[in-house]
Amino acid sequence: MKIIIVGATGTLGKHVTAAFASEHEVIKAGSKSGDILVDITNPASIEAFFEQTGKFDALVSTTGSGYFGPLSTMTDANFRVGIDNKLMGQINLVLMGQHYINPKGSFTLTTGILSEEPIILGANLSAVNGAIEAFARSAAIELVNDVRINVVSPGVVEDSPGFFPYFPGHTPVSMKSVAQAYVKSVLGFASGQVIKVY
Amino acid sequence: MKIIIVGATGTLGKHVTAAFASEHEVIKAGSKSGDILVDITNPASIEAFFEQTGKFDALVSTTGSGYFGPLSTMTDANFRVGIDNKLMGQINLVLMGQHYINPKGSFTLTTGILSEEPIILGANLSAVNGAIEAFARSAAIELVNDVRINVVSPGVVEDSPGFFPYFPGHTPVSMKSVAQAYVKSVLGFASGQVIKVY
Repeated sequence: MKIIIVGATGTLGKHVTAAFASEHEVIKAGSKSGDILVDITNPASIEAFFEQTGKFDALVSTTGSGYFGPLSTMTDANFRVGIDNKLMGQINLVLMGQHYINPKGSFTLTTGILSEEPIILGANLSAVNGAIEAFARSAAIELVNDVRINVVSPGVVEDSPGFFPYFPGHTPVSMKSVAQAYVKSVLGFASGQVIKVY
Repeated sequence: MKIIIVGATGTLGKHVTAAFASEHEVIKAGSKSGDILVDITNPASIEAFFEQTGKFDALVSTTGSGYFGPLSTMTDANFRVGIDNKLMGQINLVLMGQHYINPKGSFTLTTGILSEEPIILGANLSAVNGAIEAFARSAAIELVNDVRINVVSPGVVEDSPGFFPYFPGHTPVSMKSVAQAYVKSVLGFASGQVIKVY
């Protein structure tokens, strides 16, 4: 299977790449490093990216950032950080990638626990995650040729202790369990699902 | 109570206005008609709007549009119709309005059943609705001075038979029950809730 992993050189992306690399052809993509570069905040860059990758069987996105900061001073510009990056970046990977994906292929996007469980400073990422999860439920009923779409939503991950103070009472999840959720999406048969790892 | 209703002259907004008008001071706002005009797609217009309204006790938004069309041809520009209007329009009413709202005040935004139940052509509105609902859950824990925020999520409404073909199997809900959901949000004490009317 030809699998594109966008964000492959990031902390999470490396583990997801390792979960697929031995049995599949993996194309590592990222904004700064990888087999092929792509800037997900730029639709023209995504279009050029798919012209380079050509047809593929699965696209996994483990990338996307948002604005992390207090609601009391949040501005339109702050909020659009997550809109333009984690939200529209991942949405555009699907909108454009649907024209390159093989029949029975799959898209797997990444959100996070903030869609369901709010934390202080997390309003932008909550909104972005909620949007992606609802989009996946909806896109699943319109994608043709048995193409599927799912979302992996991790809780705070044990490899990221720097985030622990922002997640009081959350039990960190293992990076292995998160990586396996992507395997479940790509090699399983579900569609329109949010695969929660928390 | 001084209640601002953004979208007051729309189909839904008229009913919501009627539900509050006899016992409260209602300021009707809209893009084309109302007591004060506001273009929710323009942050500068929203800021100027609040300078005109001054302090208030409740803001109800019954406005916001998105892109309704097939996933197979959807573009970044199509998707941003809902992002810039229904999503950022309502988010900016909260981000800017939080600096004008009185203690114990409330924000009530509008989504719709598509956040949970997808329909064909609805991917953009599903995403936008999902974002607003997750935002409200998160904003609720950061708003200060006992200010609350909720979302009303109506199903297809009996007054809009033109939409019925897009909602097969959905039982239309009464406009009165939808209008009462806004009353529940404004006069009740809940926060961070999605008040579903379906």
